[in-house]
Amino acid sequence: MTSPAYDPNNIFAKILKGEIPSYRIYEDEHTVAFMDVMPQAPGHTLVLPKSASRNLLDADPTVLPHLITTVQKVAVAIQEAFEADGVYIAQFNEPAAGQTVFHLHFHIIPRHEGIALKPHSGKMEDGAVLAENAKKIIEALS
Amino acid sequence: MTSPAYDPNNIFAKILKGEIPSYRIYEDEHTVAFMDVMPQAPGHTLVLPKSASRNLLDADPTVLPHLITTVQKVAVAIQEAFEADGVYIAQFNEPAAGQTVFHLHFHIIPRHEGIALKPHSGKMEDGAVLAENAKKIIEALS
Repeated sequence: MTSPAYDPNNIFAKILKGEIPSYRIYEDEHTVAFMDVMPQAPGHTLVLPKSASRNLLDADPTVLPHLITTVQKVAVAIQEAFEADGVYIAQFNEPAAGQTVFHLHFHIIPRHEGIALKPHSGKMEDGAVLAENAKKIIEALS
Repeated sequence: MTSPAYDPNNIFAKILKGEIPSYRIYEDEHTVAFMDVMPQAPGHTLVLPKSASRNLLDADPTVLPHLITTVQKVAVAIQEAFEADGVYIAQFNEPAAGQTVFHLHFHIIPRHEGIALKPHSGKMEDGAVLAENAKKIIEALS
């Protein structure tokens, strides 16, 4: 299978261009992290490269070291910020694997014993809650 | 939370030392990939660093670029080898997030539309099937 082309108007591309707001918790030269607006658990964060790729299958290999470095930073901060028992990290390639937005991204989700994840792409979270959770992660990062 | 210490006798450490066999599909200076013996779908592969860390939370950041590079290579090969509609990638940190073996590893699982994943750490697959699937991925990698 050949991956379909990258759509420069996908919602994450618009967030990266600043055309759509996000609850941003981290940014550097190559990567950005912001809150998932339909969190599977409080603190659910997305990490993505600034450069365009549909998913990991077509990504420029030179961006991946930057991406995984940010994933680790954010995962450690999230564990601390939410006093999490664990951290679930996932990356979906193509709809059959659960991908719903076609700009490469990693999901980083704090887990607590006995609390199930909510469905992927479920209910939109209240903005004030997302802002509060973003603040917790930013504090843990600093 | 502080992560518990690395246990040098975990099963993946024993595989890395050659004390336990595996269906290996890739190896370089820093990383190894082999078949999950309890696959959630045919072709389910694990990618891990040779260096010791319990999971991503305590991993040496310098190993991560090598690790994600191998994850991408294997993901592309798996998509081709199994004519997959998608590829699911996951990395679990601590039992609350699903981690069952405590040496850092990524799961790479081919997905096909309409076919659900089997449970994590489910049924042991037949060795001949694992060997056949390993062969397909090795061919796609070369």
